[in-house]
Amino acid sequence: MSIEKVRSYLLELQDNIVATFGSVDGCEFTKDKWKKRAGEPLQGDGLTCILESGDIFERAGCGFSHVRGAKLPPTATQHRPELAGAPFEALGVSLVFHPNNPYAPTVHLNVRMLAAVAPSGETVFWFGGGMDLTPYYGFEEDAVHFHTMCKMAVTPFGADKYPKFKTWCDEYFYLKHRKEQRGIGGIFVDDFTEGGFANGFSLMQSIGNAFIPAYLPILEKRCDARFTQRERDFQLYRRGRYVEFNLVWDRGTHFGLQSGGRTESILMSMPPMVSWAYKRKPRSDTPEGDLYKHYLVRRDWI
Amino acid sequence: MSIEKVRSYLLELQDNIVATFGSVDGCEFTKDKWKKRAGEPLQGDGLTCILESGDIFERAGCGFSHVRGAKLPPTATQHRPELAGAPFEALGVSLVFHPNNPYAPTVHLNVRMLAAVAPSGETVFWFGGGMDLTPYYGFEEDAVHFHTMCKMAVTPFGADKYPKFKTWCDEYFYLKHRKEQRGIGGIFVDDFTEGGFANGFSLMQSIGNAFIPAYLPILEKRCDARFTQRERDFQLYRRGRYVEFNLVWDRGTHFGLQSGGRTESILMSMPPMVSWAYKRKPRSDTPEGDLYKHYLVRRDWI
Repeated sequence: MSIEKVRSYLLELQDNIVATFGSVDGCEFTKDKWKKRAGEPLQGDGLTCILESGDIFERAGCGFSHVRGAKLPPTATQHRPELAGAPFEALGVSLVFHPNNPYAPTVHLNVRMLAAVAPSGETVFWFGGGMDLTPYYGFEEDAVHFHTMCKMAVTPFGADKYPKFKTWCDEYFYLKHRKEQRGIGGIFVDDFTEGGFANGFSLMQSIGNAFIPAYLPILEKRCDARFTQRERDFQLYRRGRYVEFNLVWDRGTHFGLQSGGRTESILMSMPPMVSWAYKRKPRSDTPEGDLYKHYLVRRDWI
Repeated sequence: MSIEKVRSYLLELQDNIVATFGSVDGCEFTKDKWKKRAGEPLQGDGLTCILESGDIFERAGCGFSHVRGAKLPPTATQHRPELAGAPFEALGVSLVFHPNNPYAPTVHLNVRMLAAVAPSGETVFWFGGGMDLTPYYGFEEDAVHFHTMCKMAVTPFGADKYPKFKTWCDEYFYLKHRKEQRGIGGIFVDDFTEGGFANGFSLMQSIGNAFIPAYLPILEKRCDARFTQRERDFQLYRRGRYVEFNLVWDRGTHFGLQSGGRTESILMSMPPMVSWAYKRKPRSDTPEGDLYKHYLVRRDWI
């Protein structure tokens, strides 16, 4: 096991993603290196890359972080009660991109590794990751393409992986208080230890490397679509669901904010502009109604 | 003890507030009566009043609700472990008003009563309530006026009440992850049982009745102030903190969303339009910087 190798991969992945999408947008990402001060509950460092008010992206954040803490938080030990309170190390890359164009979907990627020292003195580690897509207007071909890329990324690790991670994603990105899926899903995996360090690291890399081919073609196809105030209004309204999910249900966001994580990096996922309105419900025979009926539901896309 | 009397008072208070501010705005509140369907986790009814895109209010919601449940939620039994899981009844009025004008502050009021049947068969009840003000631009005289009205409302119940409820408010409306107060505070009280039903009901009425004199003069003084895009941008940005507080920290919102409350009524508190930006920090010699330095901190206003 080499955490240094994981760190190098993650920094390279971030650099690659930021260079690619910065060039597509035409505006560069601002890079903000940070380091936790001695005495803070979490120790460690990170690199936050963010692009705001771009030509294509209204807000695109991509963060790397590598932290160490004295006590593994409860959110991370749901399936490992024996590790509650153990010293730990966590590193990962997390991104959320919010395009300007309402026809271009919001996307989320996260890949991470955790290591903890068990009471026995043994170091335990696991990998996690996933990506998911949140359209404002549904396109069947985009959903099929995104899911196909997800499937291709994880199938080398077993034929059972895509169905399992796809279902996990649907279950995780669900807004119970709205009875809605967050978007058309993708893949989500946590606590992955199968095949030891080498296999887990490979899976994480395979997911990370699939991000550009999964999202870029969709972005390029949709980012110049013509739209009016109607689509913009709907996009702003729907972005409210993104906020609700991340602040109410997302374990990572919640834990981070409550335990002394770096607020500005954690909240990079927030959309740049959002609206709420009372009981807004589009008619079912409109493209907006179609989104609810055919896309914000659990479906087998491929 | 008469829950019917409390219900009548709350409906009257709501009606009074909605009539007053509807008339000030010039647009009427939409009234939406609702009833929980049989089989839902909570039973009961409510009246949601909302005004959107008004002349003065961008979004103003004022809700009455009266629910019964089989099991008192943990958020309501922090100080009463013996009542965990007891059948309960809760009724209250809750409001959040978001004006268009960035010089006019957002305001929040909540008054409520809870009753639960203890394992002994005895009915236990308590009252709670409070109001607090969230300016985007600080005015010392507004803060003094608001706190004076709060103090006048609770002082008849004991000289210790205002200092105690003021501190409670400061502690409750605090964004730990930002190290900021939500606004200039006000009063907050929960679990009030002192002096029995009659005294608790009186306190609740006194707080409810203080709302119009506390807020209306401030609104009238600020709602026609001239402003530019700069103030509007800052208002939208600061409204993000309101969202963060309500979705991450507010016990009522959180419990409601996670336990099957009525989502559209609970989220009436969300601002109509909100923005987020990375590390936005105004210079300290600007009016925006002044808000952070002199208003979003704990201060004795009177």
